[in-house]
Amino acid sequence: MAKMLTSQTDDFSGWYNEVIAKAELADNAPTRGSMVIRPYGYTLWENMVAELDKMFKATGHVNAYFPLLIPESFFQKEAEHVEGFSPECAVVTHGGGKKLEENLLVRPTSETIIADMYAKWIQSYRDLPLLINQWANVFRWELRPRAFLRTTEFLWQEGHTAHATEDEAQEETLRILDIYRKFAEEFMAIPVLYGPKTEAEKFPGALQTYTIEGMMKDGKALQMGTSHNLGQNFSRAFNIDFQNQNGSRDYVYQTSWGMSTRTVGAIIMAHGDDKGLVLPPQLAPHQVVVIPIAKTDAEKTAVSSVLDELTRSLDNIRVKIDDRDQFGLGWKFTEWETKGVPVRVELGPRDLSSKQAVVVRRDTGEKNSVPLSSLSNYIKELLNNIQKDMFTRAKLYRKDHSLEIKDRDSFVENTRNKGGFIHSFWCGDPACETLIKEETKNTIRCIPMDWDVDNGSCVYCGRDSKKQVVFAQAY
Amino acid sequence: MAKMLTSQTDDFSGWYNEVIAKAELADNAPTRGSMVIRPYGYTLWENMVAELDKMFKATGHVNAYFPLLIPESFFQKEAEHVEGFSPECAVVTHGGGKKLEENLLVRPTSETIIADMYAKWIQSYRDLPLLINQWANVFRWELRPRAFLRTTEFLWQEGHTAHATEDEAQEETLRILDIYRKFAEEFMAIPVLYGPKTEAEKFPGALQTYTIEGMMKDGKALQMGTSHNLGQNFSRAFNIDFQNQNGSRDYVYQTSWGMSTRTVGAIIMAHGDDKGLVLPPQLAPHQVVVIPIAKTDAEKTAVSSVLDELTRSLDNIRVKIDDRDQFGLGWKFTEWETKGVPVRVELGPRDLSSKQAVVVRRDTGEKNSVPLSSLSNYIKELLNNIQKDMFTRAKLYRKDHSLEIKDRDSFVENTRNKGGFIHSFWCGDPACETLIKEETKNTIRCIPMDWDVDNGSCVYCGRDSKKQVVFAQAY
Repeated sequence: MAKMLTSQTDDFSGWYNEVIAKAELADNAPTRGSMVIRPYGYTLWENMVAELDKMFKATGHVNAYFPLLIPESFFQKEAEHVEGFSPECAVVTHGGGKKLEENLLVRPTSETIIADMYAKWIQSYRDLPLLINQWANVFRWELRPRAFLRTTEFLWQEGHTAHATEDEAQEETLRILDIYRKFAEEFMAIPVLYGPKTEAEKFPGALQTYTIEGMMKDGKALQMGTSHNLGQNFSRAFNIDFQNQNGSRDYVYQTSWGMSTRTVGAIIMAHGDDKGLVLPPQLAPHQVVVIPIAKTDAEKTAVSSVLDELTRSLDNIRVKIDDRDQFGLGWKFTEWETKGVPVRVELGPRDLSSKQAVVVRRDTGEKNSVPLSSLSNYIKELLNNIQKDMFTRAKLYRKDHSLEIKDRDSFVENTRNKGGFIHSFWCGDPACETLIKEETKNTIRCIPMDWDVDNGSCVYCGRDSKKQVVFAQAY
Repeated sequence: MAKMLTSQTDDFSGWYNEVIAKAELADNAPTRGSMVIRPYGYTLWENMVAELDKMFKATGHVNAYFPLLIPESFFQKEAEHVEGFSPECAVVTHGGGKKLEENLLVRPTSETIIADMYAKWIQSYRDLPLLINQWANVFRWELRPRAFLRTTEFLWQEGHTAHATEDEAQEETLRILDIYRKFAEEFMAIPVLYGPKTEAEKFPGALQTYTIEGMMKDGKALQMGTSHNLGQNFSRAFNIDFQNQNGSRDYVYQTSWGMSTRTVGAIIMAHGDDKGLVLPPQLAPHQVVVIPIAKTDAEKTAVSSVLDELTRSLDNIRVKIDDRDQFGLGWKFTEWETKGVPVRVELGPRDLSSKQAVVVRRDTGEKNSVPLSSLSNYIKELLNNIQKDMFTRAKLYRKDHSLEIKDRDSFVENTRNKGGFIHSFWCGDPACETLIKEETKNTIRCIPMDWDVDNGSCVYCGRDSKKQVVFAQAY
């Protein structure tokens, strides 16, 4: 722990890798491109899973589990889908000591195998809507793997729903987008842009993909979750038809949507600082770390009775008591700072004799002496404040790193020197989009849905445009 | 739903498959040997996961996640392990469009890849004990697949711990065995035998395997969870050494333990009857189903206000209200009986006018009119009673289908006609064990740890024996 972290401004990517190692979030695995999610990182993910799962269930979704290995022929059935995913797949060719008759692909996503089951389960409008979610591991071969952001294997949830009408499918797509937005903002404390992707950036096989996009502290964008309106693309390919209320037959309208362990990367990069992680209280594995400071037996007894009282009164808070003898105070402070624990409480004999404790905020470093009598209330309020302040700070950061640009020269100039989010009009022509990507590495992250802007002219070609979009370099 | 189930006595295995289909627990998947766990079955599993996870965490374990694909060479490092698992593996030979330099095996279990990481993480006694659990999917090629019992892919938890001493590893092995026993008995309502397996039946790579074994309603045994003392077998193979407190180096002592979706099969077969599932209240997706019976609007209003009140007062209970219009009462009764919901409440206008409701127990079929004023308390107590009664009944069933046998002829005779658990002395010689297996299909399920029996003589060869063991046919 002694060695300082690389600073974010010197080398953001180096800082990222070091934080993951030092905070023990993950480790490189012997299998190429994979990672091991260590207990501290996994607990962070578990806390996210618990909250998201509640939100899905509150909106009528249920969980199920579909097979990991998918017959290769399934991918051939939807043209865009096979083109998008086949090159990324891991292929099982042998099983039980024999060569298989048909290769099996380790799922990169489960639209096809789920569609095959839905065709069996859905007969009538009475079977609709079908609202299923799956928590699973998925596999996409990665040439340049990066912990949490791009790993060959990752964990995620994938929702797959079927509806009787086009409108219902669109409503569902947006309902989930809103859950993702809320989750990002209220739990991860990351403000997000939300809206559709362009045709070039959509999911292979979808009619339309909606995204939430957050800004990381290097000004780059991270796609944090996507919700797809699949229309009838898969239901036609897999023959998922049903009898509707007027007795005629139709293909179901589908959606799919996912959020993955990538969100761990988002939390690291949106909030971390040169001392390490800064975790939002809502999701932190430990919300409070208490460090008792006592040498003599008398001191230990005194501290321990205050500790008992404190943990009792914080019974809904995730409290970690670090009473390890083999480490010094400085070592402990650094460790929990690196691990981003929102609040540190120091309880020593001197504090106790004045009936107070020292409380330190991880996000600002602010340190206060707090009377023991009001300590637990103080901590609860502080956790709420930290959560709010982190969101506000991230929003301000995004504002400071966003720019409206109206002409091509400024666009090129800005992307060369500064980055961040660029708000510009775009004509809607994929040719312009491609050119911008080639010249500036900027892609259209999303077409924000909640922006009320006038018409303008395309930042690259000058043609009329009805939509302002957001460009950025992205992970 | 109209067609009756095959009866258990006519064809237990046919009954099992029909129950799974009709209760919508699972469905056959297009991938050979795999199943889809449908929402109702998955919720049952989720409830089990939640309880087991609490028990693991309460004893100091944390969760993590290790890669699905394991380099083939890892399996070569522990001789018994590779022999046991290699023939069952699914093999990834291609990835990202290319032939791989080294094949990857889809994990059948994770001892090897976890050992590889532990070698990196463990340096000193200060890093011990390391108590990690993983919730994951695993893959073992199955020639005769059977939903929940033997599927090519299944879900499980696998604990992997490392300790500084042999004694600590043995303590951990038994601590987990006890968690499994408690979980089976208190949550699944299935009494289990517990104790070591014989050498022939142990986990490939373990020093000793401990098991919990339950009796199904066809008299067969089901292995429901195993806890292995691995000794230093893997730590030597993967070089997981550490500096102990006196400064010298030693290899760590390890355990591993697992419980899987097989437990769903156990619940089906230990409690089900000719009407379908009978679920223990502790784990049932819906603990209570309420069926409102109302035709006129006035009746609907009256019923609905009682419903609101009831669900409020049952706020910790999982209540399902079945107010679907398109199905008749008989259909609904049959559906929830098939699905094994512990308690059914019928609320109709006639009941309401006499200020009562009809309450029906799934396990016994007992039907009572209960005053509305005491309804919620009645239901809570009833759920507790059902849980207890199911356990007692299963225990009685096991007693009625267990037999102490002292000579070879009776043993052969009994296994031919009746089955069940056979308590017999065994000399300890694998040759006798093999002979018995060949002649009677009975295997030694476990050597119960809590039995206090005198010495005797081997049921097959007559030699002296110090241990009574339990024989049975098994899944």
